[in-house]
Amino acid sequence: MPSSPFLVHPIGCIHKQEGQVWVEVDAPFREAMLGLSEFSHIYVFYWLHENDAPQQRAVLQVHPRKNPRNPLTGVFATHAPVRPYLIAMTRCRVISVTEARIYLDAIDARDGSPLIDIKCYIPHDKEQFPVRVPSWVHQNNAEIRMDE
Amino acid sequence: MPSSPFLVHPIGCIHKQEGQVWVEVDAPFREAMLGLSEFSHIYVFYWLHENDAPQQRAVLQVHPRKNPRNPLTGVFATHAPVRPYLIAMTRCRVISVTEARIYLDAIDARDGSPLIDIKCYIPHDKEQFPVRVPSWVHQNNAEIRMDE
Repeated sequence: MPSSPFLVHPIGCIHKQEGQVWVEVDAPFREAMLGLSEFSHIYVFYWLHENDAPQQRAVLQVHPRKNPRNPLTGVFATHAPVRPYLIAMTRCRVISVTEARIYLDAIDARDGSPLIDIKCYIPHDKEQFPVRVPSWVHQNNAEIRMDE
Repeated sequence: MPSSPFLVHPIGCIHKQEGQVWVEVDAPFREAMLGLSEFSHIYVFYWLHENDAPQQRAVLQVHPRKNPRNPLTGVFATHAPVRPYLIAMTRCRVISVTEARIYLDAIDARDGSPLIDIKCYIPHDKEQFPVRVPSWVHQNNAEIRMDE
């Protein structure tokens, strides 16, 4: 296993402005968008840059969805936006694709979040049911956010 | 947006040996596993370290699933294991969880792949149907691999 860290440079930026949500892909990477418009949904990977501080990256356990009634849980068993490596991933519905932009239905990211990857969304032919989740997942649904 | 790159250090390693598949989490990060055993499925994020060379990271378009009959497609519209940032993500079924290990049903990763994140899998209450995908997705199913 390599002992040196991997370097991840942003390849673009997420924008949420005036009721519109889009991903702007930087010029050197736009060729990689070919064919994206044929997908209804994509996974957007971004860096939780606002939490990129040693104190927040040292958090290993949280009360999911910031609700103290939810049991203390390891961040790997959540989607908490504090974690050692600040990779966030959200499935999004594509509205339209231009040369440089992917307009989205919505995304649980802050305006200005650095984009680090995009992958197409392909539904699983064989859904691996039954799916089991802890009870906190079904509580407090009004507070659910994809990034928590 | 920060202009400096983000540093991603491995937090563990993926092992495929003697018919078993497991993720080994390094000691400093094991507290973050609390509650994982309550999930039937997790997302495993790893680094495609065998492709971490400038030549492979410069590939922006591929024939999906390495099949020349599939149309040339941008890597962002695929799950190709060559891409500018070599983050792979696979949903896996959890068999058991120990203090340091998560035994999995299967994973499309090489033995020795560096682990970079784990997130719980929560099915979407509101599936965002209809889902639309290009025709190459439904061709050559015998060749489908999650990482391509």
